[in-house]
Amino acid sequence: MQVVMIQDKIVSASEIDPVYFDRGIYFGDGVYEVLRSYNGKIFALEEHLQRFTNSLAAIEITGVDIDQIRTRVRKAFEIAGISNAKIYFHITRGSAPRNHTWDDDLKPNFFLTVGELVEDMQAKTKGLAVLTHPDWRWKRCDIKSLNLLANVLARQDAVKKGCDEAILVDEAGLITEGSGSALFAIFGRTLQTAPLTANILPSVTRKFTIEAGGNIGLEIIEKSLTPKQAGCADELLLAVTTKDITGVVKFDGKLIGDGRPGKYTKLLTSEFLSFTV
Amino acid sequence: MQVVMIQDKIVSASEIDPVYFDRGIYFGDGVYEVLRSYNGKIFALEEHLQRFTNSLAAIEITGVDIDQIRTRVRKAFEIAGISNAKIYFHITRGSAPRNHTWDDDLKPNFFLTVGELVEDMQAKTKGLAVLTHPDWRWKRCDIKSLNLLANVLARQDAVKKGCDEAILVDEAGLITEGSGSALFAIFGRTLQTAPLTANILPSVTRKFTIEAGGNIGLEIIEKSLTPKQAGCADELLLAVTTKDITGVVKFDGKLIGDGRPGKYTKLLTSEFLSFTV
Repeated sequence: MQVVMIQDKIVSASEIDPVYFDRGIYFGDGVYEVLRSYNGKIFALEEHLQRFTNSLAAIEITGVDIDQIRTRVRKAFEIAGISNAKIYFHITRGSAPRNHTWDDDLKPNFFLTVGELVEDMQAKTKGLAVLTHPDWRWKRCDIKSLNLLANVLARQDAVKKGCDEAILVDEAGLITEGSGSALFAIFGRTLQTAPLTANILPSVTRKFTIEAGGNIGLEIIEKSLTPKQAGCADELLLAVTTKDITGVVKFDGKLIGDGRPGKYTKLLTSEFLSFTV
Repeated sequence: MQVVMIQDKIVSASEIDPVYFDRGIYFGDGVYEVLRSYNGKIFALEEHLQRFTNSLAAIEITGVDIDQIRTRVRKAFEIAGISNAKIYFHITRGSAPRNHTWDDDLKPNFFLTVGELVEDMQAKTKGLAVLTHPDWRWKRCDIKSLNLLANVLARQDAVKKGCDEAILVDEAGLITEGSGSALFAIFGRTLQTAPLTANILPSVTRKFTIEAGGNIGLEIIEKSLTPKQAGCADELLLAVTTKDITGVVKFDGKLIGDGRPGKYTKLLTSEFLSFTV
């Protein structure tokens, strides 16, 4: 007899939702995306779908029809009727009895939510405080997978210490990225961020921030920073879908610039927002 | 309006099982254990509960009553009435709208299954084939967390190539452990395995294998091996709850010893089994 227990109740395996046996929960065996809309228009849907396609391929989840995903995202967004929405979706490899290996005929599970995206205007105006944390993540952070415990622990640590984001530092002493964002530094008229490697998520907002930087005449440098270098930047900023570009004014307790979001951060933000209309 | 979509159906957030919003699936934010019974008796329950306690503490899941977990495990095992059973359970931080940070009052989710453990007698007799794979896991593998995608991908790669287990090799070129097991090598009368560090799971079976090794007069060496060294061992074996001790007879295509489980592997196995009665 196969017995299943949820909290302190014995239940019948055949009567519970198959999501209890989802490989997403057993192994984090799935990939996800977070998108947002600006004024009723989903931003960068194709870029997110392309990255999602890459993530699925990287972990060998096959048989997903991306056109169907696009249709689902659009449909759910329309039904929600939210002008500035946050859209989350994931696909896991499917539900099956727990076993590391998988059968190729497993049917992937799709899950999506749409909700109101509450803009943190104060963060935009006043800027964010960040704290460094060891980068404990796995070695394939180019895949947007559901294995996010290292990110969660780092973010919680930062928030517990009164900061907004954790900046991850690898064993070589170099900043990779934030626990849920890309970090950029401005020195003079250069805009610097870590290059895309296996340890860096190819962030959609990162891509558009670089484009915005080029448009306003900044020189782009894709080179990793040390915490010491970042702490001496003229300006620091985070790039992330739900906050687009937001200035960082405190790095490991050290004030950046005059302690307010800098002029290039503001210029980059308005250039970025011009992409969203 | 908050919209939720499962596969291609729009559903009401309030009507679906809260497990859809489990942080276990969003982030792999949980820890687990796998136990087995021998002839109607759960093996090493206290050791597993102690490790589980350590894992919970390491990721700051609080408010779990371990006595209650022990009671649940025993109750489910009794109801199942399976003599040689495999018991799996996990606790996640709880169900909540997706957000990296958590509230301390979140109620953890407990999930457990008990099923028949099918002994792979052929593996015991003939031995296993293993293949090396880069260790892509996160940097806190001492925590038995639900972030297992690196383990899953490595195991699948090994099985696809006709092997039984993937042996993970870190960036320094040293073997850490198997994707779901500990690796031991025998050279003469020494029994060698990697020392317990942040990259190694404190395996319960590893502990008892070391104890068995001492009992049969082997010298224990806790020192990491390179793949080249492992390939030259007199004997190799894997230690894992569901297979206790099983000989490895092929390592990256190279035959170990005479291609059959060795004499110390057999002695260790019978010594180990004496602990289980």
